[in-house]
Amino acid sequence: MQNFDFYNPTKILFGEGKIETITEEIPDDAKVLMTYGGGSIKRNGIYEQVTEALVDFEVVEFGGIPPNPEYEVLLEALDVIKDENIDFILAVGGGSVIDGTKFLSAAALYDGNEPWELLSDPIRVEEGLPFGTVLTLPATASEMNSGAVVSREETKEKLAMGGPGLFPKFSVLDPTAVRTIPERQLANGITDAFTHVLEQYMTYPAGGHLQDRFAESIMQTLIELAPKIMEDPSDYEAASNFMWSCTMALNGLIQKGVPTDWAVHAMGHELTALYGIDHARTLAIIAPRHYEENFGHKKEKLAQYGERVWNITEGDTDTKATKAIEKTESFFHSLNIDTKLSDYTDDYEGTAQIIAERFKERGWTGLGEHKELGPDQVKTIVEKSY
Amino acid sequence: MQNFDFYNPTKILFGEGKIETITEEIPDDAKVLMTYGGGSIKRNGIYEQVTEALVDFEVVEFGGIPPNPEYEVLLEALDVIKDENIDFILAVGGGSVIDGTKFLSAAALYDGNEPWELLSDPIRVEEGLPFGTVLTLPATASEMNSGAVVSREETKEKLAMGGPGLFPKFSVLDPTAVRTIPERQLANGITDAFTHVLEQYMTYPAGGHLQDRFAESIMQTLIELAPKIMEDPSDYEAASNFMWSCTMALNGLIQKGVPTDWAVHAMGHELTALYGIDHARTLAIIAPRHYEENFGHKKEKLAQYGERVWNITEGDTDTKATKAIEKTESFFHSLNIDTKLSDYTDDYEGTAQIIAERFKERGWTGLGEHKELGPDQVKTIVEKSY
Repeated sequence: MQNFDFYNPTKILFGEGKIETITEEIPDDAKVLMTYGGGSIKRNGIYEQVTEALVDFEVVEFGGIPPNPEYEVLLEALDVIKDENIDFILAVGGGSVIDGTKFLSAAALYDGNEPWELLSDPIRVEEGLPFGTVLTLPATASEMNSGAVVSREETKEKLAMGGPGLFPKFSVLDPTAVRTIPERQLANGITDAFTHVLEQYMTYPAGGHLQDRFAESIMQTLIELAPKIMEDPSDYEAASNFMWSCTMALNGLIQKGVPTDWAVHAMGHELTALYGIDHARTLAIIAPRHYEENFGHKKEKLAQYGERVWNITEGDTDTKATKAIEKTESFFHSLNIDTKLSDYTDDYEGTAQIIAERFKERGWTGLGEHKELGPDQVKTIVEKSY
Repeated sequence: MQNFDFYNPTKILFGEGKIETITEEIPDDAKVLMTYGGGSIKRNGIYEQVTEALVDFEVVEFGGIPPNPEYEVLLEALDVIKDENIDFILAVGGGSVIDGTKFLSAAALYDGNEPWELLSDPIRVEEGLPFGTVLTLPATASEMNSGAVVSREETKEKLAMGGPGLFPKFSVLDPTAVRTIPERQLANGITDAFTHVLEQYMTYPAGGHLQDRFAESIMQTLIELAPKIMEDPSDYEAASNFMWSCTMALNGLIQKGVPTDWAVHAMGHELTALYGIDHARTLAIIAPRHYEENFGHKKEKLAQYGERVWNITEGDTDTKATKAIEKTESFFHSLNIDTKLSDYTDDYEGTAQIIAERFKERGWTGLGEHKELGPDQVKTIVEKSY
């Protein structure tokens, strides 16, 4: 096991009816900016529950934060924070709204030249404007971690930021929010969380036996509940395990003491930046090809995953590992998630070269758990994903 | 899944060499009380590492906190805190030293009649004097939770206390500390952590699928590493998984959203209070008989545990559940932990009656996950444990 520090002070308020308890978590005299996305919260009753809970607070609203939270839009919200002297932000939404809110939390206290530096440099955020979240779309675990990803249309970039100042003070996880999530987004959420676990697990045996079993636990749970939640998102038991699994998949716990990969995300982000493909789907496009291309490094863990998660008992390590990749891709297909780039765009020729060039420009030459993955290998993986 | 709140702000510093990093976690101007136990830290090098790290702090020492931290001894330490104007406590030891330190943390700020009220009432501790820990003996997870148990020789009582003000600010988990732990204490630590998981798991199916799998993960890991750590406690990989498993077993995570039992601890504490039997061993005495006596309520979970943790594939639910209890008792035996009260004392006649009477006196009539376990059933379970 590798040395690690673990710290996660976010308070989780889990269950039906928990939205009304946020009043106990927000300072009494706070002027609150409520951030949200495209307005689905106005159709599913969550907006109403939140505004009812906040009735005794002074609240300013900022809606319209888009999926892959857009820098230019966030700058508008930042102006509101400054103009209105906001001192608490409440993000009501999924990963994009929460990530965008983390950017706002950091940018509100940032005194550099331009807030984009928080992403481009990137700057470790030690302190942010306090914020909480009401999660409506389980997927990213942004509700219980201190990282965020922000996109910039102008430069077709999608970059990460974070720091210990960006943990939400609290997050409400009410599984009844899952009831009204469209099938496409449910599939995205399951795929996103599943791939988060893979990024922190599918490396090489490193003596983190408990971490391995926790990671496998999350994947087993997601596999078990996936058909139930796709069939009936109002199944509270399935929805609650879905929600908690997504949070645990990326709240920092399972990555501590073990190597992590994250190359799938690095490549996937480029596909979203270039073609606007849903984040989760880009991961499903890249992951199987990435594991094939890095088979030699990863086959022991692939085989362990095959045995423990997919009950593959026959064959040697190579066989089990190969079958485990197939099972993973089939799992994505079972959620109606396509796993070829050409399923999403006709304009895919040259993509591998473009992404490899971008990696070169940024000096990203040593990704993955062995810090060996460079632009050439990225080119191969993306080409295979066509 | 049941509704829950989860909050755990303790920062974990995990790995060899982490002791020296505590200087970054303690306020620069703090006057530190360093608490410890019987002096094993002076023989295994930890005392030296800690005092070297604290060289730039003003430090007062208080050693001699006994196993099952004794109220009268802690009152002496409390006098030191007040006389010396201590503003940070550093507990260096196992669960007893850390639990004793939590009592001190609470008592230092308590303004009631008598600090024992913190335990007898008990009073929820919202704020305590800040403290950190350097863990030397994995077992109780006190290093990452906000609870404590304190004993009082005068009244032969052993009671629990806690509250959100009693999370350590940080805890160092250095697996090299395990190297010098005597076999008896290693066995106790494994048994204690294992039983902690059982108390939060061995109830009834409640739809906490991820929590179940996390609990099973900890038990599987403990079972796998137990022979290694008993054979060679300097096996760093085994020691690190042992340490992390003990912490995760009772840091609050796996109990959230599911019913818990804790009747084994309630009965076990009495055996320690009456006979001074090691805490972990009292749990091993009680747990198998408790599960037999409450077989009807617990057999579904016992069977699930048998299947997933012990790979019992044959037979119906009753058969698997029965075998699972046998496997559990055998596991304790494999650690040289005896599971009959008469293995520890000749003076056991009447114990069941005494403990049942104590439960009656305290009004403890509804223990366990169904809040149904009363003095009569306690009497039966303890009698069966003779």
